[in-house]
Amino acid sequence: MMRTVYMDHAAATPVSEGVLAAMMPYFRDQFGNPQAVHEIGNRAAAAVEEARARVADLIRAPAEEILFTASGSEANNLAVKGIALANQKKGNHVVVSAVEHFSVLHAAKTLKKSGFEVTEVPVDPEGRVDPGAVRRAITDRTALVSVMHANNEVGTIEPIPAISAVTRERGIPFHTDAWATAGKIPVDVGALGVDSLSVGGQGFGGPQGTGALWVRKGTRIRPLIDGGVQEGGRRGGTENVPALVGMGRAAVEASESMEENRRRLLPIRDELSRRLVAEIEGVVLTGHPTERLPNHVSVCVEGVEGEAMLLLMAQQGIYASSGSACTSRALKASHVLLALGLDAALAQGSIVFTLGPGNTREDAAYVMDALPKIVQRLREMSPIYRAKPAGDLDSKSG
Amino acid sequence: MMRTVYMDHAAATPVSEGVLAAMMPYFRDQFGNPQAVHEIGNRAAAAVEEARARVADLIRAPAEEILFTASGSEANNLAVKGIALANQKKGNHVVVSAVEHFSVLHAAKTLKKSGFEVTEVPVDPEGRVDPGAVRRAITDRTALVSVMHANNEVGTIEPIPAISAVTRERGIPFHTDAWATAGKIPVDVGALGVDSLSVGGQGFGGPQGTGALWVRKGTRIRPLIDGGVQEGGRRGGTENVPALVGMGRAAVEASESMEENRRRLLPIRDELSRRLVAEIEGVVLTGHPTERLPNHVSVCVEGVEGEAMLLLMAQQGIYASSGSACTSRALKASHVLLALGLDAALAQGSIVFTLGPGNTREDAAYVMDALPKIVQRLREMSPIYRAKPAGDLDSKSG
Repeated sequence: MMRTVYMDHAAATPVSEGVLAAMMPYFRDQFGNPQAVHEIGNRAAAAVEEARARVADLIRAPAEEILFTASGSEANNLAVKGIALANQKKGNHVVVSAVEHFSVLHAAKTLKKSGFEVTEVPVDPEGRVDPGAVRRAITDRTALVSVMHANNEVGTIEPIPAISAVTRERGIPFHTDAWATAGKIPVDVGALGVDSLSVGGQGFGGPQGTGALWVRKGTRIRPLIDGGVQEGGRRGGTENVPALVGMGRAAVEASESMEENRRRLLPIRDELSRRLVAEIEGVVLTGHPTERLPNHVSVCVEGVEGEAMLLLMAQQGIYASSGSACTSRALKASHVLLALGLDAALAQGSIVFTLGPGNTREDAAYVMDALPKIVQRLREMSPIYRAKPAGDLDSKSG
Repeated sequence: MMRTVYMDHAAATPVSEGVLAAMMPYFRDQFGNPQAVHEIGNRAAAAVEEARARVADLIRAPAEEILFTASGSEANNLAVKGIALANQKKGNHVVVSAVEHFSVLHAAKTLKKSGFEVTEVPVDPEGRVDPGAVRRAITDRTALVSVMHANNEVGTIEPIPAISAVTRERGIPFHTDAWATAGKIPVDVGALGVDSLSVGGQGFGGPQGTGALWVRKGTRIRPLIDGGVQEGGRRGGTENVPALVGMGRAAVEASESMEENRRRLLPIRDELSRRLVAEIEGVVLTGHPTERLPNHVSVCVEGVEGEAMLLLMAQQGIYASSGSACTSRALKASHVLLALGLDAALAQGSIVFTLGPGNTREDAAYVMDALPKIVQRLREMSPIYRAKPAGDLDSKSG
């Protein structure tokens, strides 16, 4: 049987046996609505509150300041639109980084329809936001700043504490999207200095359909989903009890295994990065070389379409992504890679490997056995690439 | 062991063994992200599309016009805010019924912050909206009308085709919330004549954390959750594959068992209603006597708090609700019961029984064995009630 090397954990991660086992009772035996007044409801409510405490622990936040959502995207929308609209009397301007997830960027774009102005702060070629640029972008009318904790396409970790020093000085609410970091590196809302932080359950081994937003007490926010009394009146809709229980369990497991995973995956990450550059000509690492997610390898391969590589890799049992999971079917050059200043053609050759706890050095070796041949094969098929003199390639990929 | 009679299916319903079995593979073995380009993603995408076709069949809509959400509340928010905001150049006025779920009413209230006016159309004492009143409420600036298919607190089915005749004549988008009806009575978007229709998975035996919105092709709608390319760019966030598969399976099961359930539950519903009035003095049936959900019994009991009844009922293994599931912890008199013209004190004594496939005549008999004694006991504890002459009670409850 063919080896399977799954390195697309940012796109989807199977839940652990422990997470699934934790969820199971809540589908049939303990199926209550947390808002029901009888004990079937009470048991469901207690399970939801335990999950809330567990997710809160993962990001070192008070449990009562956690709002559950059905995805990281929903949490980002709630934060960006909810905080900006609730604070619009202060001003109608928001600042976002150019490499945010579309659930932040497009939420900001929607705010324009309500009369907001949006400033996109650029990033350097390694994907880092300059806190000084945030300072310069802020105006007297700024209602919200949103910069992600780490970017899922290029793995770069942003200097959030340095940025929050700026926003705090100006008294402006600061949201960070921690989808990519929660469960992978320590996340501490106090140390980060932010006012709002979003996570997605799948980011740390929780089930699909889960997310959470921490909002610092006193931060004004308007609901995204109006409705009943759930989540303190700030998010309508019956709680998804089994999924939230699963996310809570995943938060515990992620906390417990974070350091060990990091220690185990770092050398695999580094070896894979090193060998990709060394053994395939025309490979450019993307993102920051050291300030990056411990499970994240991202490259662009010159003269090859990312999609084509992914399909041939999948034929050999290797699974990865090109650009972000949410845009990969859109067939556009990634806005993140363009923001890093990469050439649009080179950006088309993006491959992102996101490692999970099960990945091994042998997996990386298997990738390095297969990928150079795949790239060579694709280049041989490409008339444009074949026409290029080799020297031209070398100079561009250095 | 004490008998358990669960008649709170509108608050929460356990998924069937078939639904859970359908979901199981997608947590661990088939865990892909539908947007991933490799076959693990493709399998997930195929599962989501099959679920979409199944949910579409339940409401006789084209699959490509179904948007998945994480709850009925989210679907209602998406419809009400999304359609109104996308059509605000036509006008800034929306019409809703006074008995809508809070996910519609509060969404409409939020629209006021964007400059909309909201007209609440009243209902008659049996909870029915008069299509003529909708006609009179519509102005040249009306961008949306929203009237629910049936009300979950009092069971009344609204005259949607008669209302849609009015909205069609005026060319105004018409949304209906079919949470309470889908899977219980036939729902056919064409026959109803609406432009948008929401369902919640739990309404027809699907898992928590699922919902869907059908929007007629050509109806303008603004996303609620901005983000990636999912759901045709109209709802960001990675699809919750296992939950959607479960909802799809539940849609099939609901279609197949709807007629049998209806035939079996109608006589239980009618006998329970009849005996509640006959055997407990001061009981008023709420909602419409015949145009009502086949699984729905709702009453108000004079001189007794609904919450107190529920707690004593639960001690005897009987589970029901008071008011709606989403407001029952809010301890306010239900806006629905007040809209029917019920006295606020009487409205406090609300009990709602929502039957499920497992309920039997013996369950109803068990309720009628226990409830009169519970009511008597609570009335004996109430100094206000004891002070009333019996004749006063009889005349009010007749």
